Amino acid sequence: MFKLHPTLEKDCIVLGSFTLSRVLLMNDSQYPWLILVPQIENVAEIYQLSEPDQLQLLKESCFLSQQLSKITQADKINIAALGNTVPQLHLHHIARFKHDPCWPKPIWGQGPAIPYAPAALNDLKSTLLQCFERNCISPVIFTA
Amino acid sequence: MFKLHPTLEKDCIVLGSFTLSRVLLMNDSQYPWLILVPQIENVAEIYQLSEPDQLQLLKESCFLSQQLSKITQADKINIAALGNTVPQLHLHHIARFKHDPCWPKPIWGQGPAIPYAPAALNDLKSTLLQCFERNCISPVIFTA
Repeated sequence: MFKLHPTLEKDCIVLGSFTLSRVLLMNDSQYPWLILVPQIENVAEIYQLSEPDQLQLLKESCFLSQQLSKITQADKINIAALGNTVPQLHLHHIARFKHDPCWPKPIWGQGPAIPYAPAALNDLKSTLLQCFERNCISPVIFTA
Repeated sequence: MFKLHPTLEKDCIVLGSFTLSRVLLMNDSQYPWLILVPQIENVAEIYQLSEPDQLQLLKESCFLSQQLSKITQADKINIAALGNTVPQLHLHHIARFKHDPCWPKPIWGQGPAIPYAPAALNDLKSTLLQCFERNCISPVIFTA
């Protein structure tokens, strides 16, 4: 049975699930940063997914990138599947700004996360969830 | 008309073209590192591609990751679309090893590239081109 990797569970807030992927918000107020985790066991690379799951991941990733870009008015969306420390396949989507602390460098390993204040977290969660519900690409069941 | 971004042209060796993407080898002997550049003008994000082009990019990316993994026996493939400094959409595929200079950190901005020696470059190019020809996912015309 699929189980979220403990590191992702510790570092992120679960927003819910798309058809294929668990949708996570990284608890780092420096960057609007969403992660898709296909709910399939023992997969580390995108090419190891079945072809229908690859297509579904692409669909969910494009949906998420476009909505994140629209909501945040980001200068660039950074997308990555790295997995050097967390082997469970997960796809980062990070809204980047020319004025953010790391621009133009990638954000991984650039200093500790700064968790959201409760009110800011609630605002962002609510904006994201409303946006997903309004535009849902397929039945979106929010489990959390 | 599509034109490769000057930075990609300077830093990489063009191996040829798949149906959608120009296939580049980053001239850094520290990491087997391939880049796909969809040959479409003025696109910065994957979601800005047409749906058929998104699917083709996925297909080419999965093919490339799997072959790169097989050829190099890498511990992990890192895939990323960043584009903070080079706005032309390009998708990195990097073979990572537990013994490489940056493991487990991402490789971007971690010190200067070390160009391939001519013989090593020829060997790698020839291995990659043979592998692409043997497994081609669709007509692969090598322009360089």
